Amino acid sequence: MAESTGDEAQFEGDAGTLRRPWQAYYEATLGFRNHWYPVFFSRALAEGESRGQMVLGENILFKRVDGRVYAIEDRCAHRGVKLSVRPECHTKNTISCWYHGFTYDVRDGKLIAIITDPEGTLVGRIRLKTYPVEEKKNMVFVFVGDDEPQDLALDLQPGFLDDDIAIFPDGEHDVVNSNWRLAAENGVDASHIYIHRNSALINVAKRALPLATYFLTRDGMVQDQDGAPKGVIKGAGQRTAVWETEIEGVKIGSQYQPGVNTDQVYRTDTSLWMPCGLKVDPCPRPGDIQFEWYVPRDEGSHYYIVTWGKRVSSEADKTQFYHEMSSVWKELVVDKFNNEDVIAREAMESFYAE
Amino acid sequence: MAESTGDEAQFEGDAGTLRRPWQAYYEATLGFRNHWYPVFFSRALAEGESRGQMVLGENILFKRVDGRVYAIEDRCAHRGVKLSVRPECHTKNTISCWYHGFTYDVRDGKLIAIITDPEGTLVGRIRLKTYPVEEKKNMVFVFVGDDEPQDLALDLQPGFLDDDIAIFPDGEHDVVNSNWRLAAENGVDASHIYIHRNSALINVAKRALPLATYFLTRDGMVQDQDGAPKGVIKGAGQRTAVWETEIEGVKIGSQYQPGVNTDQVYRTDTSLWMPCGLKVDPCPRPGDIQFEWYVPRDEGSHYYIVTWGKRVSSEADKTQFYHEMSSVWKELVVDKFNNEDVIAREAMESFYAE
Amino acid sequence: MAESTGDEAQFEGDAGTLRRPWQAYYEATLGFRNHWYPVFFSRALAEGESRGQMVLGENILFKRVDGRVYAIEDRCAHRGVKLSVRPECHTKNTISCWYHGFTYDVRDGKLIAIITDPEGTLVGRIRLKTYPVEEKKNMVFVFVGDDEPQDLALDLQPGFLDDDIAIFPDGEHDVVNSNWRLAAENGVDASHIYIHRNSALINVAKRALPLATYFLTRDGMVQDQDGAPKGVIKGAGQRTAVWETEIEGVKIGSQYQPGVNTDQVYRTDTSLWMPCGLKVDPCPRPGDIQFEWYVPRDEGSHYYIVTWGKRVSSEADKTQFYHEMSSVWKELVVDKFNNEDVIAREAMESFYAE
Repeated sequence: MAESTGDEAQFEGDAGTLRRPWQAYYEATLGFRNHWYPVFFSRALAEGESRGQMVLGENILFKRVDGRVYAIEDRCAHRGVKLSVRPECHTKNTISCWYHGFTYDVRDGKLIAIITDPEGTLVGRIRLKTYPVEEKKNMVFVFVGDDEPQDLALDLQPGFLDDDIAIFPDGEHDVVNSNWRLAAENGVDASHIYIHRNSALINVAKRALPLATYFLTRDGMVQDQDGAPKGVIKGAGQRTAVWETEIEGVKIGSQYQPGVNTDQVYRTDTSLWMPCGLKVDPCPRPGDIQFEWYVPRDEGSHYYIVTWGKRVSSEADKTQFYHEMSSVWKELVVDKFNNEDVIAREAMESFYAE
Repeated sequence: MAESTGDEAQFEGDAGTLRRPWQAYYEATLGFRNHWYPVFFSRALAEGESRGQMVLGENILFKRVDGRVYAIEDRCAHRGVKLSVRPECHTKNTISCWYHGFTYDVRDGKLIAIITDPEGTLVGRIRLKTYPVEEKKNMVFVFVGDDEPQDLALDLQPGFLDDDIAIFPDGEHDVVNSNWRLAAENGVDASHIYIHRNSALINVAKRALPLATYFLTRDGMVQDQDGAPKGVIKGAGQRTAVWETEIEGVKIGSQYQPGVNTDQVYRTDTSLWMPCGLKVDPCPRPGDIQFEWYVPRDEGSHYYIVTWGKRVSSEADKTQFYHEMSSVWKELVVDKFNNEDVIAREAMESFYAE
Repeated sequence: MAESTGDEAQFEGDAGTLRRPWQAYYEATLGFRNHWYPVFFSRALAEGESRGQMVLGENILFKRVDGRVYAIEDRCAHRGVKLSVRPECHTKNTISCWYHGFTYDVRDGKLIAIITDPEGTLVGRIRLKTYPVEEKKNMVFVFVGDDEPQDLALDLQPGFLDDDIAIFPDGEHDVVNSNWRLAAENGVDASHIYIHRNSALINVAKRALPLATYFLTRDGMVQDQDGAPKGVIKGAGQRTAVWETEIEGVKIGSQYQPGVNTDQVYRTDTSLWMPCGLKVDPCPRPGDIQFEWYVPRDEGSHYYIVTWGKRVSSEADKTQFYHEMSSVWKELVVDKFNNEDVIAREAMESFYAE
């Protein structure tokens, strides 16, 4: 899978396999199975703690043991209640159901004890489903599907895992009430930047926003070896987010126009990556890269996870970057900018839900 | 269509066409299409302002331009969001979608600009649906349907448009959670006045309420030229709202009995008019006429719009009438009387919804 | 129907009739019709008062007249509204619909007057459904079904009606949002006691809880004359609620262990009785018997009714028992113990509702 570095199409798929290239997307109401998804920031799960989260419609329980995060089905095999309702851990490697004491090893999902029935014949014979977990760059990822997990890197925005990239460990993690695809489409849509035109972020930066959006193929997709639409999707062509038009003789334009009232002009590349990641480069400032994910939760909601990366060459650089994100930019981007996107997604949801 | 002035049937439809005269009504869950409906009081929409309202299940956006009210579909042709979520008007005759700047002329619904894509090929080629609007007697009316609109007067209670009638410009406008038909049936039902028997309005007026309810035809309908049940529906016969009965030897009666403890005795005519208007004459005082509408919103709710009219012969009369309605009667009728009706409609809704 | 007093099976049903003994239970989403159900404590309905309650999906109105409780359909025959929305009683034996004054005799359900239409032809000709009611031991019971009601005693936990048993008149009455069967299964499940292990009740009593649970038949059912699974269901075998097990080398055990840190050791018998009653003997203290019911309300909720009984030999005994229940035990059991059960039922509901 080649990464694009320019505006030109670099990959031509076989026309036949592309006949209905978006079919899988139309059907992916609950997201694409057999992919890696970020679930939360590492700092959200301390040693020995557990937390439940619904991903692609499945309730998953996460627990950190000796630094490593494990994930099992969040549903007791006995009476079906969620373990996370009242998480109860008597020992390091286990979680016990709060209801009858069915006790599972989180490393392999095995039922290893029933506190209220020590001789119970099910002990050692049943297990809860487990989920592969990886933890990289201050974030926890889970693989949801039935196949063997592929390399995590294949499901991440290019650059995210690079050694010299520092990822801000305290990004945003919210539930938004729209299907995840409305969020993805909003994110990669160049002209939606219109809704942000009066945001504090734009005003602080006094920034003009020429957006580069281009396709890698005629259909905007990178395919895998089998020609399936897996991998990368980017917008095609070159468009600007500095707009100027006339309505009934009235000039309507971006607040900041290059050469007129700002010198803050730079091209921003926005790209969408399987299964649900966005990359905005640069954002919010030159040198910063914004990473977003729209992780399917259920049919009508998704987790909106946002953070930022920067190439750094020293610990001091990294510390400085984290400090600036915490103290200024996180709030500006999330509260004053991304909230506009949340409103848009939820407004579309009420239309598309019909 | 002749207006009734007495108790006698004045119109005899062809028996054949009346065989299932109520069929259309039973099916009109979302109201009767191809009719005029009041939507709000004129004062609710100032010059240059816009507002959205759902009528017969359709989201409609209203904007006032140079004094005139226009109505278009409240749904952007691009991504389906409601324009009224964040109304944005860059120029006098237009509304722009807050999401991507799709800009429509409210006079004809045409897409005349896309702010974020000035060369967009859709410009000038697509349009949103428009709705005919009329504004009379301090109220705005919209025609919802597919046919050519008939004369507004055909859809209004008789007398409402008369030159010497002053209509109070600041009536009530509420959403009530029941199907509109439960409201209509409650309104025209003579005996429902029972629920109002202890209301402040009755006590202030010390009023006895002989109600006249009569049919114009055997089926209580006036038909149009084609024999369809269109036009006027009135109750049949003569009944009194001054009740007196005995239950287990206990006399139960209206609080105010003519000749016993009140001289405030007068006949009140109540009639229901297509598509959803009620007329109560007189109410609340001799000389006042109450006009109500139960405008279908969606299957489970309607707008309850109430105001009053009075025949006046001078500006001073009119001012005095408005003043009295504002300062005394509006509150007495709406808060202390009509609220009983709202409770009844919502109580029926929970039964009929099954 | 013999009551069990020991651990031995005392009744052997015909194998044939037991082939699918639980079928009726699986289908009883709204409970078993043709049985008696407790609805409220006697003190909740004073002379002349009325109250509405939904039982097995039916809205029922109760009114007390001359000390006796009557029950009729809580739905006016005219426009379907619930009489209990605004109960209105002009005379002792009647309730009038608040909407149009349709007046019913609560003793036989007959429409005996229409206040707003004294000559109405329906008077004396229609009636609302009535329900058999019994009041025993400070509680009101209603029979919901189509058959002739059987003896109330057949639907009550053994002992409840005994002459020397005093029943606490001020137990708990709550609505819980789960199907009634999840409550019944939780109640009779010996090991669920695990969720109560840290409750204040256990700590105050410093109590170890060996639970006796046994079957009367191989299938845990007592059958009626026809072999149908009607009557008594008890758990089988002998198990202990004093648990001690080892997880990853860590000993997990009940807080109070007989002979170690408590002498409060006694066997508790828990049994479930048709149609929805539980008996816990003894509870909370030796000599007390806890009676619970999970009365089906609709598919997703039930009334949770709890009280206690004790064999007394004098008025002073009874007064003392009531006083102790009010001042100490009711709160300990209900707020600090049974609330755990409510959490469990509602957690299961979200799983089983799928």
